Amino acid sequence: MSGNRIVVYKGPGEVAVEHFDYPTLELPQEVAEGLGIKRSAPHAVILKLVTTNICGSDQHMVRGRTTAPIGQTLGHEITGEIVEVGDDVLFHRVGDICSVPFNIACGRCRMCNEGQTGICLNVNPARAGAAYGYVDMGGWLGGQAEYVMIPYADFNLLKFPDRDEALEKILDLTMLSDIFPTGYHGAVSAGVTTGSTVYVAGAGPVGLAAAYSAQLLGAATVIVGDMNADRLRQAESFGCAAADLSKGDALADIIADIVGEPEVDAAVDAVGFEARGHGHGAAEAPATVLNDVMNVARAGASLGIPGLYVTGDPGAVDEAAKHGQIGVRLGLGWAKSHRFVTGQCPVKKYNRQLMNLILADRAHIAQAVGATTIGLDEAAEGYAQFDAGAAQKFVIDPHGMVS
Amino acid sequence: MSGNRIVVYKGPGEVAVEHFDYPTLELPQEVAEGLGIKRSAPHAVILKLVTTNICGSDQHMVRGRTTAPIGQTLGHEITGEIVEVGDDVLFHRVGDICSVPFNIACGRCRMCNEGQTGICLNVNPARAGAAYGYVDMGGWLGGQAEYVMIPYADFNLLKFPDRDEALEKILDLTMLSDIFPTGYHGAVSAGVTTGSTVYVAGAGPVGLAAAYSAQLLGAATVIVGDMNADRLRQAESFGCAAADLSKGDALADIIADIVGEPEVDAAVDAVGFEARGHGHGAAEAPATVLNDVMNVARAGASLGIPGLYVTGDPGAVDEAAKHGQIGVRLGLGWAKSHRFVTGQCPVKKYNRQLMNLILADRAHIAQAVGATTIGLDEAAEGYAQFDAGAAQKFVIDPHGMVS
Amino acid sequence: MSGNRIVVYKGPGEVAVEHFDYPTLELPQEVAEGLGIKRSAPHAVILKLVTTNICGSDQHMVRGRTTAPIGQTLGHEITGEIVEVGDDVLFHRVGDICSVPFNIACGRCRMCNEGQTGICLNVNPARAGAAYGYVDMGGWLGGQAEYVMIPYADFNLLKFPDRDEALEKILDLTMLSDIFPTGYHGAVSAGVTTGSTVYVAGAGPVGLAAAYSAQLLGAATVIVGDMNADRLRQAESFGCAAADLSKGDALADIIADIVGEPEVDAAVDAVGFEARGHGHGAAEAPATVLNDVMNVARAGASLGIPGLYVTGDPGAVDEAAKHGQIGVRLGLGWAKSHRFVTGQCPVKKYNRQLMNLILADRAHIAQAVGATTIGLDEAAEGYAQFDAGAAQKFVIDPHGMVS
Amino acid sequence: MSGNRIVVYKGPGEVAVEHFDYPTLELPQEVAEGLGIKRSAPHAVILKLVTTNICGSDQHMVRGRTTAPIGQTLGHEITGEIVEVGDDVLFHRVGDICSVPFNIACGRCRMCNEGQTGICLNVNPARAGAAYGYVDMGGWLGGQAEYVMIPYADFNLLKFPDRDEALEKILDLTMLSDIFPTGYHGAVSAGVTTGSTVYVAGAGPVGLAAAYSAQLLGAATVIVGDMNADRLRQAESFGCAAADLSKGDALADIIADIVGEPEVDAAVDAVGFEARGHGHGAAEAPATVLNDVMNVARAGASLGIPGLYVTGDPGAVDEAAKHGQIGVRLGLGWAKSHRFVTGQCPVKKYNRQLMNLILADRAHIAQAVGATTIGLDEAAEGYAQFDAGAAQKFVIDPHGMVS
Repeated sequence: MSGNRIVVYKGPGEVAVEHFDYPTLELPQEVAEGLGIKRSAPHAVILKLVTTNICGSDQHMVRGRTTAPIGQTLGHEITGEIVEVGDDVLFHRVGDICSVPFNIACGRCRMCNEGQTGICLNVNPARAGAAYGYVDMGGWLGGQAEYVMIPYADFNLLKFPDRDEALEKILDLTMLSDIFPTGYHGAVSAGVTTGSTVYVAGAGPVGLAAAYSAQLLGAATVIVGDMNADRLRQAESFGCAAADLSKGDALADIIADIVGEPEVDAAVDAVGFEARGHGHGAAEAPATVLNDVMNVARAGASLGIPGLYVTGDPGAVDEAAKHGQIGVRLGLGWAKSHRFVTGQCPVKKYNRQLMNLILADRAHIAQAVGATTIGLDEAAEGYAQFDAGAAQKFVIDPHGMVS
Repeated sequence: MSGNRIVVYKGPGEVAVEHFDYPTLELPQEVAEGLGIKRSAPHAVILKLVTTNICGSDQHMVRGRTTAPIGQTLGHEITGEIVEVGDDVLFHRVGDICSVPFNIACGRCRMCNEGQTGICLNVNPARAGAAYGYVDMGGWLGGQAEYVMIPYADFNLLKFPDRDEALEKILDLTMLSDIFPTGYHGAVSAGVTTGSTVYVAGAGPVGLAAAYSAQLLGAATVIVGDMNADRLRQAESFGCAAADLSKGDALADIIADIVGEPEVDAAVDAVGFEARGHGHGAAEAPATVLNDVMNVARAGASLGIPGLYVTGDPGAVDEAAKHGQIGVRLGLGWAKSHRFVTGQCPVKKYNRQLMNLILADRAHIAQAVGATTIGLDEAAEGYAQFDAGAAQKFVIDPHGMVS
Repeated sequence: MSGNRIVVYKGPGEVAVEHFDYPTLELPQEVAEGLGIKRSAPHAVILKLVTTNICGSDQHMVRGRTTAPIGQTLGHEITGEIVEVGDDVLFHRVGDICSVPFNIACGRCRMCNEGQTGICLNVNPARAGAAYGYVDMGGWLGGQAEYVMIPYADFNLLKFPDRDEALEKILDLTMLSDIFPTGYHGAVSAGVTTGSTVYVAGAGPVGLAAAYSAQLLGAATVIVGDMNADRLRQAESFGCAAADLSKGDALADIIADIVGEPEVDAAVDAVGFEARGHGHGAAEAPATVLNDVMNVARAGASLGIPGLYVTGDPGAVDEAAKHGQIGVRLGLGWAKSHRFVTGQCPVKKYNRQLMNLILADRAHIAQAVGATTIGLDEAAEGYAQFDAGAAQKFVIDPHGMVS
Repeated sequence: MSGNRIVVYKGPGEVAVEHFDYPTLELPQEVAEGLGIKRSAPHAVILKLVTTNICGSDQHMVRGRTTAPIGQTLGHEITGEIVEVGDDVLFHRVGDICSVPFNIACGRCRMCNEGQTGICLNVNPARAGAAYGYVDMGGWLGGQAEYVMIPYADFNLLKFPDRDEALEKILDLTMLSDIFPTGYHGAVSAGVTTGSTVYVAGAGPVGLAAAYSAQLLGAATVIVGDMNADRLRQAESFGCAAADLSKGDALADIIADIVGEPEVDAAVDAVGFEARGHGHGAAEAPATVLNDVMNVARAGASLGIPGLYVTGDPGAVDEAAKHGQIGVRLGLGWAKSHRFVTGQCPVKKYNRQLMNLILADRAHIAQAVGATTIGLDEAAEGYAQFDAGAAQKFVIDPHGMVS
């Protein structure tokens, strides 16, 4: 335990594993100073990573589409074993294996009290909300690592009841830190319920998790749209219909072929700001997916928008988009009385119930998203394959604990 | 009863009162044909208008900012006395005085079943939702008239329990057909509740009704923003704080001066697409108000958007806006986990409870919005004054029934 | 079409099929007079029954546990083909095959507007709510018949989109008139959601439908309790755990054996007032099940209570219970912050979405409840077997339309 | 600071102020042992009491209607100034003046995560939920005292933003620890909203707070029922209608005289298990009020039940009631599709927004409930007067800080 190794951003398209000090039970300097509280963190624990996944939102940084500096540590999808606890950690013990929501939250502010852990007020002096290993999210060290410090541990940790069972189902349980709840939140936000017809834009891991969650919520039919044939096949593998957008057909027509009308009850935008146009609308890329989703969602629908939209995008196609301003067909949404639900998923709101489903053998999310285990030193290769469009979700296993 | 007179649009800036046939118990031709149902309407009644108000959304047509043809009949804020009933009107009688939701709804489709009367599926072949006297809303004759036909009357009419009491409080009750519920819907959609701090953009009648409704919902502080000094004074008259946007101060600073922080719990956009910039953002007019509202709403807020955004605007500032596509700072809203609630208010959802409040003498909406009675032949003058920014809500009294 | 045949109650334990006039498009005399409206019903249709099921609540009448008079017509689970339409039926046609909610509702009153069709104010002069063929429910003729009149048809009917598909899945679709939505309502009322552990008291058709619905809603584990071994096996057939209450074990212990703790997240009372004690509590029968359910529901739970509790029970065990007053352990529920959700299921709230699920081949409710087809003349035999505890749901097929 | 003085129960009808040690930052022995966690509490603070109120639920103990032992410390309505903070108290400082929810909650368990702080799982080994100074609620020392220890302080404390403003409005703010949120919760649970007609059973402090809250929520008419003339006058003082139940008139008739029909939209039982019959139903006392409330609540209503019902009542009128089993007319509620919402108010859910309203000068709860300041040594006299039916809410001021 004399050190730590963490995946860091080394410039566009490049990541590396670098050496760091072993973590301490202290808040990041910028958080403590910015909030005017002490650094020592009796509420924190040190976790030894069991698994830590590569996320699509990490790719925004690695592709150079954010202001992340060289050296930014990465990793916010964390599952680990407690190896050290602070003095005020009462309900967790060394040896517990736990899932960590990617949202860092204090459990003591108004937002946390209201269940809005994605916009905690006490973890990031610059704005509401924080995450591990992410630019502009509070300066917390990344969790694609051997060890990581988790603050407010009694609040943030979700303990798996049994160690052996946890390790046995670890590839499903590792998805509880982000994409399974995020996909589920997208589906819930879109109002998916028993009997719904659903369209999910994007067949990356979040889109697949949203589609899978829509099925869990009782959807009658789930359609997933993408231009990547492998990812569409992945969606079909668990019973979704595929909308292949690479061929130029109108999405509404594709949907009509499947459900008998050009609209669905509920729609999820699991793509976000790096949207690429397909066919006619290619020029207005950043809002293309959202506008598509409005077009095919029935009047009165809610639109779940787990796909990330940013306040600043240095690589954007135009000046407005560089400041996060994009051409939304708001009039269309308004005419249809749409509701738009945006923002980070508050993972804690959902992770316990999804864990229960996994442990009861009623959810197989690892298979749905194509979970693939790699070592910490294979992280760079994992990033590259994922960026190239592999229909896989890469799970880093830093200590060789995954069988 | 040998005829009818209705206010019609005669070209940009111009309205007139014209002669029409006395209404019959029949659906508009385009509705019956478009839906493939018979025209005869045993579910309908004929109302003699008691009051009928001029609405801000009528102004969009009269200003030439829509595709309304010359001759378009006007008026959707209707209160009247039943003078004739169809064979299938069972629960209303000749002589009843009733408020009519501006949304025409069948009461028999899925949307009506779910309380979404603003997007009824059976009243407009072209899209979901219809209204009296409005372009692209089904071809129903306007209610700024002497008489008007109301379909699905048992579903659409809200009867006032006592005739004398109704006539006594008619200036309050006349607001139940549109702006009181619409303002209330805006406040509800924004999540206003006990103790909220609230910002309402726009001090026109809907903005004032939203501000008044926010107070009814228990807001601690309500701030109303506008550039029109008279309308701001009107907002102050019932206890709101005014944000004078004509002076170039940043809205967040104005709000901080009033509530001690630059954000509010809940925000309402009661302006819509004809927004004008104030200060720095003047060039991106159509989304200015919405972007402002995002800026000052706290993380986690819902944004109530009763202000109208359109799918087509022939007078828009740029090509995109002509198709209803505007530059929304979606990244900002997403970072704050905002929810955007758009669309026509489903008036039926609220009008009964607001009526009860008026009848119990606990709501004085007429005073709040500056209700001013005029005759049918003064309609043109009313439109002109309203367009010039009068802090008044014009109530047409076609039969001289308002004392 | 010169007549009609309907199942009628002939005294305790006895039913018969009797001749009646062919139905007309008119309200029952007592409804029209009681409400002061005309009898002619242009809003009504005549249905030729395709299927009509025997319900557990019919048994309360047939067992003599209600004030139903000899001659009471029976049957409220109705699926049929339209053979005649009134003048104000606009959105349904002769030949449509439709499901009919057992709740009769006008679609025009406040309760219907709020989706509370189980307590419509315009269909029963004596109280809120009505049903076909039921004592004290408005005097509407029963639907265990060849033909039946359905009022307010555009509001009440749920049309199946395709006739052939409907007839093919008719044994599933016939459950939409009552028990599938009723069971689903029980599960929804109990707050069942993704990952819940659930206890359903009673393995009769409603209990089985509640258990099946809990699975559709994403429950991790569903436990069904009963004393009837056949019905418990039926519950196990679709993946539920059985709690055999005939052996005297404490329910909490049985539950602890299954889920690892003596409590569940959500509990449904699908038995109601004819509850029989099991073991220690036998003396306080009418509230036994409800008290049990409180005992095993976790703190903070909602209790779904689709099981019927009555205002008068001539056959009750004591004076208080004869007036519907029973010994509830309210202190226990209060200490656990329970919510109790009672009342008839408002079928319209759920039947469309459940139909969509059946048509998408994702719900197989007929199999779950043991649907068994019989002829109209076999009704008496069906009632007898059902009363004897058969693990079957009897579906009457009066015209031999079910293959 | 060498000691502490706390009000204690000395036997039926008797309380006294006794000397105790000055509190330490430690959990009660029974809590730490029962849960298997350490006693030292770095999350705790010591408060110097500013105000501490006598509650109606204290009276149940003092009247000998519970199993509270002689020596039970009393007091759970706590407002104080922080004089000492533990190592893990990050967001509160010595000198802050704070309101304390009477529910003790950890902020770290599933129930707290869901906002159900009234049934926290980590503060009472015997059951869900705890309170200061209350029998069977975890063994926490009472707060009718000079000093009190508050655990999980960052989670439990509500800080008043400004000290001077707080002391100025202290008689309103002191109601935030219990009765204002409890009354508000009762009204919210009953579904009170804009335009509702409301009946509140009981004009004690909680009933008055519920009535006042109903007005804040926008009720059209609020009726309060009691047999105590002084308390009814108190209700009338802020605009409620009084239902005097001492005269034997049927409640439904009284209501019909006031609102024109024998039912209300929403009803609150603010009496609980020590209900006394009025007129005809005197024999079945414990459920009388609840049955009354069902009788006058419209079909479809929710019933808010902040009044306490207990699991054991040694002084009950019959054997069943001694075990918390009482004669509820469940059939009546079921026929009306009622929802029953029971349990302790989760104060944290509401106290912030109600504080905001008080600070904005829009809520005057002290006046509504008749706040009356007394010294700590006058506690016994306060208990006696309150028990005798004084229309007052006694606020103890142990350090003479209330001007």
